[in-house]
Amino acid sequence: MSASEFDLIDRIRSRAATREDVVLGIGDDAAILQPPAGKQLVVTADTLNAGVHFPEMTKAEDIGWKTLAVNLSDLAAMGAQPAWCTLSLSLPESDPKWLDGFLDGFLELASRHGIAIVGGDTTRGPLSLGVTAMGLVEPGRVLRRDGAQAGDDVWVTGTLGDAAAALQSLFAGATLDRALRARLDRPMPRVEAGRHLVGLANACIDVSDGLLADLGHICTRSGVGAEIRLETLPASPALQRFAPVMRHAWQAAGGDDYELCFTAPQERRSEIAAAMDSIGIPATRVGHVVAGQGVQVFDTNGNPWQPSRRGYDHFAG
Amino acid sequence: MSASEFDLIDRIRSRAATREDVVLGIGDDAAILQPPAGKQLVVTADTLNAGVHFPEMTKAEDIGWKTLAVNLSDLAAMGAQPAWCTLSLSLPESDPKWLDGFLDGFLELASRHGIAIVGGDTTRGPLSLGVTAMGLVEPGRVLRRDGAQAGDDVWVTGTLGDAAAALQSLFAGATLDRALRARLDRPMPRVEAGRHLVGLANACIDVSDGLLADLGHICTRSGVGAEIRLETLPASPALQRFAPVMRHAWQAAGGDDYELCFTAPQERRSEIAAAMDSIGIPATRVGHVVAGQGVQVFDTNGNPWQPSRRGYDHFAG
Repeated sequence: MSASEFDLIDRIRSRAATREDVVLGIGDDAAILQPPAGKQLVVTADTLNAGVHFPEMTKAEDIGWKTLAVNLSDLAAMGAQPAWCTLSLSLPESDPKWLDGFLDGFLELASRHGIAIVGGDTTRGPLSLGVTAMGLVEPGRVLRRDGAQAGDDVWVTGTLGDAAAALQSLFAGATLDRALRARLDRPMPRVEAGRHLVGLANACIDVSDGLLADLGHICTRSGVGAEIRLETLPASPALQRFAPVMRHAWQAAGGDDYELCFTAPQERRSEIAAAMDSIGIPATRVGHVVAGQGVQVFDTNGNPWQPSRRGYDHFAG
Repeated sequence: MSASEFDLIDRIRSRAATREDVVLGIGDDAAILQPPAGKQLVVTADTLNAGVHFPEMTKAEDIGWKTLAVNLSDLAAMGAQPAWCTLSLSLPESDPKWLDGFLDGFLELASRHGIAIVGGDTTRGPLSLGVTAMGLVEPGRVLRRDGAQAGDDVWVTGTLGDAAAALQSLFAGATLDRALRARLDRPMPRVEAGRHLVGLANACIDVSDGLLADLGHICTRSGVGAEIRLETLPASPALQRFAPVMRHAWQAAGGDDYELCFTAPQERRSEIAAAMDSIGIPATRVGHVVAGQGVQVFDTNGNPWQPSRRGYDHFAG
């Protein structure tokens, strides 16, 4: 079954929830939004391409979820409250059934975070999903990459490495634990954690390219270095069972975790633990910020540890 | 020569102009923007794919210009003042020379309209360029599609049909007038015209899919019909020379014009003429809004005229 471009847009419009501050939603040349007085706007854009950002055989529902999740994860890393988004769909064919599946996943996550689709477009082309997400913060009440200080603790939320383990196992044809697969297909953006960290953390980023690469971005922007202790990296029970040895490489450099990595003064430890406890998100100290530059990793014996790759670069050979 | 994803982002950041209301631009998880007090936000997203929205052989500079132009055209159709945009680049290879050409065209148009790139991403994939553009309006001081009234004049800015003539001629291998080609490659978004029409026009849309299709959107949203007189459609001297007969089909149904089509009460004629005159943009009355539904076209003899196609649908067979 095939549908026109306008049928697809109508389908999105009929299913998308709205918000009171959406003056005019999908259906005109542009949306009209009413930002609340005194707030600042936080804007991020991330595109997912089939075969690059998700395996070709991923279910439509999971692609929908992940497309929004990676964008919400960027808002989370800023400590922003999600508000609105646009959605640009490039589809190889007009398939209302696929679109409905995609929207099932996308809108399930959207409703959890109260974010409304207010516009976008559909075009024919290789499968590609682009979102621009907008969030709101009080002026200055925001997390950035450039505030890390020597002496800060380095923290991560949740656990690392599950998504990378799932992806590598898929490629290897291994039978896969459902919990690991869920972390690859349905990452949970840490929006609440980000909002609770405003005023506590000095710097924050979401772990999309891999912990070392992303912490490296904090270090570069802040003019500092960092030291990580490999054995402290938090691993899920599923990952500990699945790959007790391999897990360290996936945890340090695998990517696609969509946890938050943040730095905070040591005197904030109990406040951070209490804040994360209040929302049921574990947070773990995995190292500290030092003067200098670059991220060093040390193994259980205190020896420097080198991953085979330090993160994901879409244009790496 | 190849560059990493981060090199490409640095290249964009180093060349992009900023604005005072950009609190934090490219380089963090998201941008932070300060909307002016009391303004509403106007948001639109359009993606261009190679071979669909521009011929494969289009120069990088022209792709850059057009990528921003089609998005500014949507802001123009709302009467909004451009402010910020995100840019998502999907590139088959990392080619700094191509990117520099693309940015030449994109940033030339951006600087004319004072719009700042504040974020985005680069991924490897088939050539695809996605923009989400944000503009500002005073509350209620905006153009929409749903306000057309029976009795309104139907107007278009500039001239129609040049881009369609250029595209068809390219496909046919014909030698092409430079003026026609320029209309295809470097459309001029009618931002100033849109802003001057706020308070004068009852409804407005930009002509991207073809006049009949786009005016049809106004009619559907407004619950009215429209009648167009074919011989009144404004044609450039180049188009009149190039295709004195064929031109009507391209003008009525060709698309890619990025002019504004708007409806306004008859008693506004002189004000509209004066407003368009003050900014040097021609505007022409091409028909009127009627009770009922659908767009009817009449030829010189008053007979109904049928185009072979009524506009562009990305999923049409």
